[in-house]
Amino acid sequence: MDLKDLFKDIDKYLDNNVTISGWIKNHRDQKTFGFIDFSDGTCQDHLQIVYDESLANFKEIQKLLVGCAIEVTGKIIKSSGRQAYEMQAQNIKLLGDCPEDFPIQPKRHTKEFLREQAYLRPRTNLFQAIFRLRSIAAQAIHEYFQSHNYVYVHTPLLTTADCEGSDQMFKVTTLDFNNLPLDENKKVDMKKDLFNKLTFITGTGQLHGEAFAMAFKKIYTFGPTFRTEKSNTKTHANEFWMIEPEIAFCDLNGLMDIEEDMLKFIVQYCLDKAHKELEFCDKFVENGLLERLNKLVKAKFNRITHNEAIDILKKADVKWEFTPEYGEDIAKEHEKYLTEYFNGPVFITNWPKDIKAWYMKLNDDGKTVAAVDLEVPGAGELMGGSQREDDYHKLIQRAKELGVDVDTVDWFCNLRKYGGAYHSGFGMGFERLIIYLTGVDNIRDVIPFPRTPGSCDF
Amino acid sequence: MDLKDLFKDIDKYLDNNVTISGWIKNHRDQKTFGFIDFSDGTCQDHLQIVYDESLANFKEIQKLLVGCAIEVTGKIIKSSGRQAYEMQAQNIKLLGDCPEDFPIQPKRHTKEFLREQAYLRPRTNLFQAIFRLRSIAAQAIHEYFQSHNYVYVHTPLLTTADCEGSDQMFKVTTLDFNNLPLDENKKVDMKKDLFNKLTFITGTGQLHGEAFAMAFKKIYTFGPTFRTEKSNTKTHANEFWMIEPEIAFCDLNGLMDIEEDMLKFIVQYCLDKAHKELEFCDKFVENGLLERLNKLVKAKFNRITHNEAIDILKKADVKWEFTPEYGEDIAKEHEKYLTEYFNGPVFITNWPKDIKAWYMKLNDDGKTVAAVDLEVPGAGELMGGSQREDDYHKLIQRAKELGVDVDTVDWFCNLRKYGGAYHSGFGMGFERLIIYLTGVDNIRDVIPFPRTPGSCDF
Repeated sequence: MDLKDLFKDIDKYLDNNVTISGWIKNHRDQKTFGFIDFSDGTCQDHLQIVYDESLANFKEIQKLLVGCAIEVTGKIIKSSGRQAYEMQAQNIKLLGDCPEDFPIQPKRHTKEFLREQAYLRPRTNLFQAIFRLRSIAAQAIHEYFQSHNYVYVHTPLLTTADCEGSDQMFKVTTLDFNNLPLDENKKVDMKKDLFNKLTFITGTGQLHGEAFAMAFKKIYTFGPTFRTEKSNTKTHANEFWMIEPEIAFCDLNGLMDIEEDMLKFIVQYCLDKAHKELEFCDKFVENGLLERLNKLVKAKFNRITHNEAIDILKKADVKWEFTPEYGEDIAKEHEKYLTEYFNGPVFITNWPKDIKAWYMKLNDDGKTVAAVDLEVPGAGELMGGSQREDDYHKLIQRAKELGVDVDTVDWFCNLRKYGGAYHSGFGMGFERLIIYLTGVDNIRDVIPFPRTPGSCDF
Repeated sequence: MDLKDLFKDIDKYLDNNVTISGWIKNHRDQKTFGFIDFSDGTCQDHLQIVYDESLANFKEIQKLLVGCAIEVTGKIIKSSGRQAYEMQAQNIKLLGDCPEDFPIQPKRHTKEFLREQAYLRPRTNLFQAIFRLRSIAAQAIHEYFQSHNYVYVHTPLLTTADCEGSDQMFKVTTLDFNNLPLDENKKVDMKKDLFNKLTFITGTGQLHGEAFAMAFKKIYTFGPTFRTEKSNTKTHANEFWMIEPEIAFCDLNGLMDIEEDMLKFIVQYCLDKAHKELEFCDKFVENGLLERLNKLVKAKFNRITHNEAIDILKKADVKWEFTPEYGEDIAKEHEKYLTEYFNGPVFITNWPKDIKAWYMKLNDDGKTVAAVDLEVPGAGELMGGSQREDDYHKLIQRAKELGVDVDTVDWFCNLRKYGGAYHSGFGMGFERLIIYLTGVDNIRDVIPFPRTPGSCDF
């Protein structure tokens, strides 16, 4: 049985025999008995297994090292030790041996060392917590949207549309780099490639999401996303997961309501279903994490305009590295100040159009767009969204102004012609959410096998 | 409000006013009144809206064409027509106009025509049913695994490991095709690429999944997958979604138990939560679909070996296109015969090692591997899995025999050294499941924006 099920209802199993399979996390052997710290990875809790010389293979058991896979049958009993329960083993069978040089020993390893052991690090308590939490948070997202009548859409990753700026997208090919076919102009003949065209991996599902929102009213995507950014920071990875909901008949205020409601749901879901994992992170990653999350669930999210944000920043008694300016982007230090100023999450709306995307709805002032970023304490920008431009002609004009190749996205623009109502959507980087939920500060530590410039190992 | 919520509890709303937003699916206007067939895409059911000349903008409403987005406030009343309820409109507001040349008119369109309108086809009843079902089936999968203590793992798509045969994988690059850097041997210098190496999009998450199964006991992946196959058939696409569970302490029989249990859960979940969608498919796609699915939930899945399958095929009074042979693969016609022979799903186990992958567990006979394919009536092979080779030396030997570059997957092989117990896993193509659940016969019609050779539009 799974340890998770055992612990869920352990009183029921008291004085009964159960059989469990898992791994030795620690082992103390005495002359006539021994203690095994046992985990099967289904929950954060470990079980202490006690065995003694009455077992036929006592001598062999004593030799088992950390990392060994074992199957144990034994009786659940009350413990006299620190833990409430333990197992009195009746049978311990070795399933998979583990040598002394197993890199994951029961001691503190640095995160840098563990990144080099990416295929083994999920066996540590820290990464058990992080990746189980990651799984539970993913489920929270699905349950939120499914229970609110959203349709989950698998938007394509392969695309021939070059509307995001092809320098930010990976090119994809089946051609042989050392034997590329050339056309009459001695350029590489992409007509010979699998899709007869230059093809990319897209960095967003939004465009396709909008097409589905115009059919199903409320949709969301949740899938991997790629950026070619050559940036080695704590917050950048070349492959990450993103959630992109898109909602018809929803304006910017409605969008903020949804973002706030969704985030609170996810946090509460994790507090309920991943409490042990969060407790672990509170203890070993960020003291005060649980308090911060509990506070968020009850918080009222503030809503200010970009102009109001700049007002506040300009009035602040702070020596900025980047001077805050109307009409310009805000820096990480500004985000941090604002969440501290409001002592909670802040929506910043109505951004200068020149620093935002071409498909965002132009406000009546002609200078700002109906965009919104959500800033949260500790993690900065967690979501970015906007009401979408629903006027066909304005959209085409903005696209041209910003150098978008309109021909490759004509279908997207046409959505405005065929019953295209007002609608809004946002994107949330899943890793940023996990960073927020765990207090872990490096994106490399919340992705199972991170891909960053120069690093695509495992 | 959403139409789905309205219909869920419509009696509660009887004689009350509600406001809904959605699209005109059909419109019959008479001299003094009119009927609008209305849908908002949140459920398969439409609502009939009745309006009359008492509305101030009656003349404008009469002109509204199919495809228009509208917001309607009105009273829910019992209908004297075919449907049980309808809405008596008090206010109809145009939100998004739609011209006469809107391609999706209320008539039968061919699927080929609709593929050319991939961004609009989700507005048809058929694609409403398919893509809503797809979303619900995805949720069924998540709920099954999460409720059984599995950890959802986002395995990476980008990889530098070349163990699947690089000719089957897309190459990924940030280099400029027309200005490729060369090394001293005049070969393209992949060290100049973002990851300093030749990089691919992987076709499986299994290897990484195994690493996580050795930490969390039970894991699953659910994400996009890519193949470069230049094959234009009804069942092949270059981008599709796959589910790959991997379970420690699980042998081949245990794996079959899980596959059977999971499939029945998914089908029952869809019968419960997507009944209207399945009813629609039963009526317009495959007569008898509901009966077939209801039968599956109660079926006992048969389990035979590959040898036994060949026995049955050889005895069959059928003129085969491909003669069934011991030690060889079985063809589509054989799969079909076997599911008809057993009148239900069949697991075929213990396949000839030469036609299966290098990481599958070699049986004691030295000739077969502990692999299993699940064949289902109507869709053929739905899942393929195996117990994994857990002996380090046997694994390395098989890898070398099959020409796998062991150096690029040394970490995967090392899993056998460090507490690597017996374990099993399978893969299920998500589109194949949707084909099975809807009766739709072409993979292009169950993927939102399909990618096939020469076709990467939208």
